[in-house]
Amino acid sequence: MASSAAAIVSGSPFRSSPLIHNHHASRYAPGSISVVSLPRQVSRRGLSVKSGLIEPDGGKLMNLVVEESRRRVMKHEAETVPARIKLNRVDLEWVHVLSEGWASPLKGFMRQSEFLQTLHFNSFRLEDGSVVNMSVPIVLAIDDDQKFRIGDSNQVTLVDSVGNPIAILNDIEIYKHPKEERIARTWGTTARGLPYAEEAITKAGNWLIGGDLQVLEPIKYNDGLDRFRLSPSQLREEFIRRGADAVFAFQLRNPVHNGHALLMTDTRRRLLEMGYKNPVLLLNPLGGFTKADDVPLSWRMRQHEKVLEDGVLDPETTVVSIFPSPMLYAGPTEVQWHAKARINAGANFYIVGRDPAGMGHPTEKRDLYDADHGKKVLSMAPGLERLNILPFKVAAYDKTQGKMAFFDPSRSQDFLFISGTKMRGLAKKKENPPDGFMCPSGWKVLVDYYDSLSAETGNGRVSEAVASA
Amino acid sequence: MASSAAAIVSGSPFRSSPLIHNHHASRYAPGSISVVSLPRQVSRRGLSVKSGLIEPDGGKLMNLVVEESRRRVMKHEAETVPARIKLNRVDLEWVHVLSEGWASPLKGFMRQSEFLQTLHFNSFRLEDGSVVNMSVPIVLAIDDDQKFRIGDSNQVTLVDSVGNPIAILNDIEIYKHPKEERIARTWGTTARGLPYAEEAITKAGNWLIGGDLQVLEPIKYNDGLDRFRLSPSQLREEFIRRGADAVFAFQLRNPVHNGHALLMTDTRRRLLEMGYKNPVLLLNPLGGFTKADDVPLSWRMRQHEKVLEDGVLDPETTVVSIFPSPMLYAGPTEVQWHAKARINAGANFYIVGRDPAGMGHPTEKRDLYDADHGKKVLSMAPGLERLNILPFKVAAYDKTQGKMAFFDPSRSQDFLFISGTKMRGLAKKKENPPDGFMCPSGWKVLVDYYDSLSAETGNGRVSEAVASA
Repeated sequence: MASSAAAIVSGSPFRSSPLIHNHHASRYAPGSISVVSLPRQVSRRGLSVKSGLIEPDGGKLMNLVVEESRRRVMKHEAETVPARIKLNRVDLEWVHVLSEGWASPLKGFMRQSEFLQTLHFNSFRLEDGSVVNMSVPIVLAIDDDQKFRIGDSNQVTLVDSVGNPIAILNDIEIYKHPKEERIARTWGTTARGLPYAEEAITKAGNWLIGGDLQVLEPIKYNDGLDRFRLSPSQLREEFIRRGADAVFAFQLRNPVHNGHALLMTDTRRRLLEMGYKNPVLLLNPLGGFTKADDVPLSWRMRQHEKVLEDGVLDPETTVVSIFPSPMLYAGPTEVQWHAKARINAGANFYIVGRDPAGMGHPTEKRDLYDADHGKKVLSMAPGLERLNILPFKVAAYDKTQGKMAFFDPSRSQDFLFISGTKMRGLAKKKENPPDGFMCPSGWKVLVDYYDSLSAETGNGRVSEAVASA
Repeated sequence: MASSAAAIVSGSPFRSSPLIHNHHASRYAPGSISVVSLPRQVSRRGLSVKSGLIEPDGGKLMNLVVEESRRRVMKHEAETVPARIKLNRVDLEWVHVLSEGWASPLKGFMRQSEFLQTLHFNSFRLEDGSVVNMSVPIVLAIDDDQKFRIGDSNQVTLVDSVGNPIAILNDIEIYKHPKEERIARTWGTTARGLPYAEEAITKAGNWLIGGDLQVLEPIKYNDGLDRFRLSPSQLREEFIRRGADAVFAFQLRNPVHNGHALLMTDTRRRLLEMGYKNPVLLLNPLGGFTKADDVPLSWRMRQHEKVLEDGVLDPETTVVSIFPSPMLYAGPTEVQWHAKARINAGANFYIVGRDPAGMGHPTEKRDLYDADHGKKVLSMAPGLERLNILPFKVAAYDKTQGKMAFFDPSRSQDFLFISGTKMRGLAKKKENPPDGFMCPSGWKVLVDYYDSLSAETGNGRVSEAVASA
């Protein structure tokens, strides 16, 4: 947990330097549990530059990491708190998300009033009467024994898998964990086989514990990718440094192909046409829990690197950084979370495609969500009114041009749709996609990934343990 | 369908006249499909009386019934529309609800954008940016054949079970009926055995059809109870006539016992203490679809009559009228609908108890909802901010006083809780509850009801056909 902000630059494996060069990251780096108010005006080299960035939800970006000068004291305090809760992988990812303010104005795991508003309204009301979006429960489950051991305590220490204190949860509130209702209202189904529900809900305890978080130090994973994990505060600093007057976010959890690149390039073109002078892309691959047959983060990051080296996206106007949230595959409910979190990171435009955060129905032969619902729900969601939603145009492989292009229904016979399933199938069989679908070096990463699986499992099938590691 | 407003008075079986004496009902009686703006000031006998009634949702009370002068023409038009949809019982109840503006500002069955906002946000945004609550889908399902027959038509005629035209649905929009998702998001479970889902969703068609309603004449049931079915417009007129400066609504679907009466009387006392001069009670039993083991409306109305004759509630400050909605048993989701509809009927106070609109889990041995969630969700619901929520105090049978009283936890041994299940059990066995639980004449109605069931079924078990008729 020692990777410093400077390493983001010096250690970047992206030789075409698409990542940020942020010499000022420390200014807003985590180091205080107090609320950080972002400056509306940033003075730089004597010039007054209007930041122009969208305000965080609730007006203030949360930073729940204890400031450096108090860490020794707080760590000692954490050791003395009698009640301890061991965090699993997904819990820790949520602590990370909360600690950096992606879920602002949340100050910790949800108490019951926030949980109920999230389930029923996908939003909650602040004390000043304003409404912020919040569509997925960010909660911590405990079992009967843990509840008993906590007793009347007002705080608990959260520890990692080997018992190291990670955070203190204060002013706690314990309430029932209505698992079936939580799943039904979040996913619109209770079918068995929802990846997040199986991982983090069904087997979890019968109680939820909410409270305010004090996180003892910035969350690190020591997986070689920490330098790509910029907090909303660091991202905002970078957007200001680049003089961005529009930030458009692209959420992804899959390898990037040239259709994505076309879309992102075209979005920038449209924003320039709208009169923005310097739109910057936040390419923000999801870094938390994903389902077994998704390509793991480390391989995706290698693939993104190759695609960026290939020069399809302009490093000057692109910031690549990992979004630390776990993936819920909750479609129209989750896409709101993906968008809301990016507001907190400074994005005022959000690109949304077909069936965002969707997946196949776990027990029926159909997609879980209507492909258009995500976009529609997002455009109507309470608390997201100030975010500009940019619907995807559909890109497909244009056989006449030998490259990815926007689909033209008047000559549909010229286009080839290459689904994620088809793409994975080709990579597994070490076959090549059509020229122009993805740069060869990026494709090779995918082939290598599936190759590594075959080698480990001996039969080419995805091993859950490997793929979700 | 000919019952006139005058019949409400002359035909009332309530000898103690708790029902309204509304000689002005025709002023706002259904008779126009245009929107009725309610007067803020009502001039009466030369005095200017400030109405003080809460505004309907969206500012205007919908009235979707065709005005009398145009009915012949519209009925003829309805006969000429080629596409027809036969309404089932629940569909017709929703047409009734919509036609009178209980669901204002809805102008008909939901189109997709309203449906999605209802499912995800329990509310929707109007064109002026304001938000109104809407927690339960009010939708009309059609099957593949019906969709095919409608083809490109822009309107359909809705007919009753024997083919009589009831309404025209205009500017229609047909979209997929995501049954599983609808059930999951409305009830927080997809367990088999949810009464409304079994009745109106699971077997329904795979499509929903939304549009604007023109209802050909006021909906009547010819069951002897139409005179107790006052529209929101008629109720508002009555509250104004009585000079009410506060209206407190009590939703019920069960027989009234003295605990309810105590609560309603006590609420009036509290409102007087708060400075209101003339708080009026809207006692608003639900009249639509209920589950098989609930006491049917006709028997409940007989029971209410006896209780009112008994003088426990003051006829001068009580309006009894039937709420035409079907019952969903959707707990915290549905209680919002119950409250929102009563705003449209003029109520600015809403009494909410434990586990409103709740029931046992259909497949597990527990209540479907946490008993406190309904009250909490209601108090936080978007679009209901201007409604005053009055939480129930718990009433129980005080053995020391021999009557229903507010539960005093410091002497809990003195109290007896008589649940609905226990009450039904006693009535079925023709046993008496403790003195003071319910007036003897009201209790006799319940005993007679269960007696009539035994006679019909021969074994004392509730026959679904009888109980839900």
